[in-house]
Amino acid sequence: MNFVEEKILKEARVEDGAVLKVDSFLNHQIDVDFLNQIGKRFKELFEGEKIDKIVTIEASGIAIACICAQYFNVPVVFAKKTESKNLDKETYKSQVYSYTKAKHYNIMISKRYLSEGESILFVDDFLANGMAAVAIKDIIDQAGAKLAGVGIVIEKGFQEGGDELRAKGINLKSLAIIDKMDKDCISFR
Amino acid sequence: MNFVEEKILKEARVEDGAVLKVDSFLNHQIDVDFLNQIGKRFKELFEGEKIDKIVTIEASGIAIACICAQYFNVPVVFAKKTESKNLDKETYKSQVYSYTKAKHYNIMISKRYLSEGESILFVDDFLANGMAAVAIKDIIDQAGAKLAGVGIVIEKGFQEGGDELRAKGINLKSLAIIDKMDKDCISFR
Repeated sequence: MNFVEEKILKEARVEDGAVLKVDSFLNHQIDVDFLNQIGKRFKELFEGEKIDKIVTIEASGIAIACICAQYFNVPVVFAKKTESKNLDKETYKSQVYSYTKAKHYNIMISKRYLSEGESILFVDDFLANGMAAVAIKDIIDQAGAKLAGVGIVIEKGFQEGGDELRAKGINLKSLAIIDKMDKDCISFR
Repeated sequence: MNFVEEKILKEARVEDGAVLKVDSFLNHQIDVDFLNQIGKRFKELFEGEKIDKIVTIEASGIAIACICAQYFNVPVVFAKKTESKNLDKETYKSQVYSYTKAKHYNIMISKRYLSEGESILFVDDFLANGMAAVAIKDIIDQAGAKLAGVGIVIEKGFQEGGDELRAKGINLKSLAIIDKMDKDCISFR
């Protein structure tokens, strides 16, 4: 059992059957020492890949991306979900459906911050249906950049996203893959 | 001139008169080395204060809070702006108006992650009218915790928020205070 699996067993809670609450350490309260362990592990897992930039999606991905970036010595870019005066008009854009929020939304990255030929590591807290990763790949393709890898903290292995990304040849590394979970038990692959 | 003022002069852009675009290093693309300088500086400025937790607001505050937390050895909690299945029903809640997004929104922190007697450092990228800081103070008061300090990267000194917070006795430290800005010139206090 690795440190992510241990952390999940110790602190996560399963609610309503399909919601894994990790808000005590990953996406509301944040355990920064734990994120540093994740950063080190991703650095090992993607050793040998050229990484120019780490990309994630606001909000909960930002914490992971920034701590990880310290191990790769690269900048972070986070995709935004809402238009604002702080976002350029010229963006790469793609659509995602969120099951936890039950709605479609766009994710956007300013054209200024993704360049042709750049090699990108996408990191996120969860992978379930894989739609966020597919949308990020779409944006990276629009920019003429390359998706060098996808680093996920927790993959819901009982949903299809991870296996679909692997079948497409994407270099996906998930630190914990949950194959089954309910209120009383969480089983890892 | 300090490192934040230098960074602003080198990389920020003023658009539409009142929008300071720092999206190349602070709130879209993120310069993690720069955030580490900020973390070190806040640690110096709040030396002597007991800090149990760093609180911020999603999304752009998260990067600053997580890097800073490494210098304070404390967890981060970020206030959420939207309801979701990942957020507890039992929350402390307060309302903020965003000028850049031109709307009111609630910010929420689960009651689980703020406790009576805790001493909190609130950090954020910008301070303008100060409404976000007032809402965070309201939430901290609801929890029976204490606002030990407010650490801001860029204060818009030509808006009233900073001076109002100081007048209330809040321990506010802003790394750069802009007294005047237009397309051609940015003047610091």
